[in-house]
Amino acid sequence: MIHGKNFIGFDLAAEGSLTFKTFSPATLQELPELFVQATKSEMEIAVSKAVSAYEHYKRKSGKERAAFLRAIADEIELSGGQLIERACAEAGLSEGRLLGERGRTLNQLRLFASVLEDGSWVEASVDPAMPERKPAARPDVRKMFQAVGPVVVFTASNFPLAFSTAGGDTASALAAGNPVIVKAHPYHAGTNELVAGAIIRAARKTGMPDGVFSSLNAFDFSIGQELVLHPAVKSVAFTGSFTGGKSLYELARKREEPIPVFAEMGSVNPVLLLPGKINEDTALLAATIAKSVNIGAGQLCTNPGVLIALKSAETAVLKTELAKQISQLLPEKMLHQNISNNYERKTKQIFENREVVKLAESEQLSAELTGRPVVAIVSGKDFIANPNLAEEIFGPFSLLIECGGKDELTEVLKTFRGQLTASVMATAHDIKSFRKQIEILQEVVGRLIFNGMPTGVEVGYSMQHGGPFPATTDGRFTSVGVDAIKRFVRPVAFQDAPDEYLPDELKDANPLNIWRRVDGHLSNEPIKK
Amino acid sequence: MIHGKNFIGFDLAAEGSLTFKTFSPATLQELPELFVQATKSEMEIAVSKAVSAYEHYKRKSGKERAAFLRAIADEIELSGGQLIERACAEAGLSEGRLLGERGRTLNQLRLFASVLEDGSWVEASVDPAMPERKPAARPDVRKMFQAVGPVVVFTASNFPLAFSTAGGDTASALAAGNPVIVKAHPYHAGTNELVAGAIIRAARKTGMPDGVFSSLNAFDFSIGQELVLHPAVKSVAFTGSFTGGKSLYELARKREEPIPVFAEMGSVNPVLLLPGKINEDTALLAATIAKSVNIGAGQLCTNPGVLIALKSAETAVLKTELAKQISQLLPEKMLHQNISNNYERKTKQIFENREVVKLAESEQLSAELTGRPVVAIVSGKDFIANPNLAEEIFGPFSLLIECGGKDELTEVLKTFRGQLTASVMATAHDIKSFRKQIEILQEVVGRLIFNGMPTGVEVGYSMQHGGPFPATTDGRFTSVGVDAIKRFVRPVAFQDAPDEYLPDELKDANPLNIWRRVDGHLSNEPIKK
Repeated sequence: MIHGKNFIGFDLAAEGSLTFKTFSPATLQELPELFVQATKSEMEIAVSKAVSAYEHYKRKSGKERAAFLRAIADEIELSGGQLIERACAEAGLSEGRLLGERGRTLNQLRLFASVLEDGSWVEASVDPAMPERKPAARPDVRKMFQAVGPVVVFTASNFPLAFSTAGGDTASALAAGNPVIVKAHPYHAGTNELVAGAIIRAARKTGMPDGVFSSLNAFDFSIGQELVLHPAVKSVAFTGSFTGGKSLYELARKREEPIPVFAEMGSVNPVLLLPGKINEDTALLAATIAKSVNIGAGQLCTNPGVLIALKSAETAVLKTELAKQISQLLPEKMLHQNISNNYERKTKQIFENREVVKLAESEQLSAELTGRPVVAIVSGKDFIANPNLAEEIFGPFSLLIECGGKDELTEVLKTFRGQLTASVMATAHDIKSFRKQIEILQEVVGRLIFNGMPTGVEVGYSMQHGGPFPATTDGRFTSVGVDAIKRFVRPVAFQDAPDEYLPDELKDANPLNIWRRVDGHLSNEPIKK
Repeated sequence: MIHGKNFIGFDLAAEGSLTFKTFSPATLQELPELFVQATKSEMEIAVSKAVSAYEHYKRKSGKERAAFLRAIADEIELSGGQLIERACAEAGLSEGRLLGERGRTLNQLRLFASVLEDGSWVEASVDPAMPERKPAARPDVRKMFQAVGPVVVFTASNFPLAFSTAGGDTASALAAGNPVIVKAHPYHAGTNELVAGAIIRAARKTGMPDGVFSSLNAFDFSIGQELVLHPAVKSVAFTGSFTGGKSLYELARKREEPIPVFAEMGSVNPVLLLPGKINEDTALLAATIAKSVNIGAGQLCTNPGVLIALKSAETAVLKTELAKQISQLLPEKMLHQNISNNYERKTKQIFENREVVKLAESEQLSAELTGRPVVAIVSGKDFIANPNLAEEIFGPFSLLIECGGKDELTEVLKTFRGQLTASVMATAHDIKSFRKQIEILQEVVGRLIFNGMPTGVEVGYSMQHGGPFPATTDGRFTSVGVDAIKRFVRPVAFQDAPDEYLPDELKDANPLNIWRRVDGHLSNEPIKK
């Protein structure tokens, strides 16, 4: 069933001589199918097809693009058990998790389809002419978002479906009117092939141009780097490590024409545990934290990698409860040998800092390639002296920083750089007493959560998944939720354009019946002249 | 009256030993006042004051910030004749032009004030909780824009008021809630001082924190570079040359935390002259073009530096008319000796390309330091072989590209990189016949103008002043118009936050009565629970 080839638009190609296999964390064996790494010439053809496709695809109406996205969702659904089975095999995740992730993937595609059907997302704005204005007549000026051109998507290792081939990046880039070229994650090459096939079938069925989507296999960096440097590529999306994201970001700066790189590079998502809340139900709080630390073997970008509390008798009870909970956690399978090796190495290394002590680790039997949950403790004072201790350890690890007073807590909070999220576990009284401290966190995060763990990212209109650097390369945008589409557009203004030339979104009659800003006021009415 | 010192928040400082004077293009003499270049330590204090001011300023309500902006406008108006006189002296521009530019500056400040008073600009979005949702309850998620921190503004040489100390960059950065540090243009140090004084008086009168605004003098690059590299600076705005903008952009990449640099670097603003339009009223078209080439001695970022037409008998008539018009233009004063020297050198150099011939130049008497209007011609074929001929010559110069047919025209249009604008001079019939060619231009510009010259940028809701690189470093934003505020904010999401913690814009009751997106639908109603 799996052919191992690259999708160069509607064509399959496998001219290259480099091949690789994927690995099953469950069986600890390589899977049998061979994948052929894309050649440079195949990459060039994919880009050139994307450039041609762009000319046609950008002219498709919102409804046409919506039909394409809905068809992708339908085709993925039709892939049924085969897709889930393959994703389970390649990612070592449970069937339940992957069914959930598929649901989210389908929801995302359909949500973007509904946004396109509604049409108001283009932020159309109309300032009608004022021929009588003095001292000079005012021209008619209108603007809206338009697509930017071919987008390259690097898929994530930790979400084989929802942040992958047909995940949020691809869905939002396609929704905005851009062709997409996926650089598939080598750990999930089979899963990628099944989803890419679904996208191609959907493109054919809904009359989309050849080149609107391509998917390239690669286990080394060369193809990805060439894509980022290609002059016809206009934007890049990436989810993964800081090292990977930063290097793509640097690479894009070397182009003659710099382009945006939206890299979501992870985060330690500090969780502030305030005294009133700790007191309220210490056991429940400890259980909530422990569960969140271990979800997906801690391989989520929203993993709570840092906990912060004031040293107190109550915190001592919390520590005891947390140690109990952590020791009982069942280690889960990690995504890959490299990730698991790194995790093991880093959870050893951190204790080479004499000021860091182990609070607890899971005492449960663990199979090979699982990540053993660990919680470490450091004092606020020692942490301030060495804030690098907050560097992310990808896996089910968390560092509890115990602060010797409010001032020390404030100083600890000030050390944090950009984060995807911060959580505040607090009673109403805590929030009043610690408002200043909470606001310090607000300044460095994309999402501030009250009485909830960072894991679990809602896909909706108000989600912000993206924080200041180094959580992402551009905290002004989100990679989850409807507004992710704004990464792949730019505004274009039309001055005194005849109605026939204007896109439907800007025509006088407002044929799409969308909301527009007319002279600064929202309106869904036609422009009267 | 002019003290020559730096504004370090509410304090004046002039500890440095480097001084400079400004120059009057009108009298060709230096003006008498000495300006003291800011020292590194003064710069550090300005940034540190900005950091402290940010803590207070970001908490000011929209109405409070609006009062500040209105007070700045009022104080500038009260500066009256002295300001206009100084700006005339330092920029060599006419009183009429500077009165117009002051009017625009005041309008911009008041427009941003009205945007703040309205309040809806923060793009508040609310997805209320759904506790009953299956399989998991939906949290309450809300988001809106918030300020980013200290912004550095490099003022432009060609607009001593409207793109300068209290120009669009400063107005939009302050409106968004950020302190501003201006690196004043050394050509207009006196004008800057008068305007900076007005801003400081306005800040004091409206109770804004010390450090919300600073202004530093510098005639060399060091202070500007130190500002861009300062870790506490969060964003940079610049209007000027490609070399200047690109170097700041590169500099910002070298920071540990990269920050956005919004550099507006100019453009040749191609004007497509289509056959029907040329035929309609050839003399009027020629006069319109000639006037636009010479406005402000061609020193506008929207100067029409390239004209494109098909070779034909009608175009021959246009050329004759244009030559007549150009020869009669009165050369205007340029901003500075350097600019004038560069202009003279470059308008000589271009004719070293043997394929470029002179169509006409002004034959009018010219005073020293004026820019003599010149129009050159090149064939489409020769231009395609050397598209570098389209590099901007800052001043009243334009290059007419004469194309030997529609295919050659298409190829010429495809050579253009990012531009602020393109103009299409066309009849309705022309637009139908050349739609494909017009769309090629649309792809590389921020603003597409029909039957109008690029010069003259409306300040409104729908303006897009910013095109793909190299016109700007970020074509996703505008530096003119209301949406310029979006450069200096980032979205922050609040999950399950108690109403008391939320900013007014996101509270259930909608106390500011703003438009919000509630579950994806626009509403100005309270959230019902």
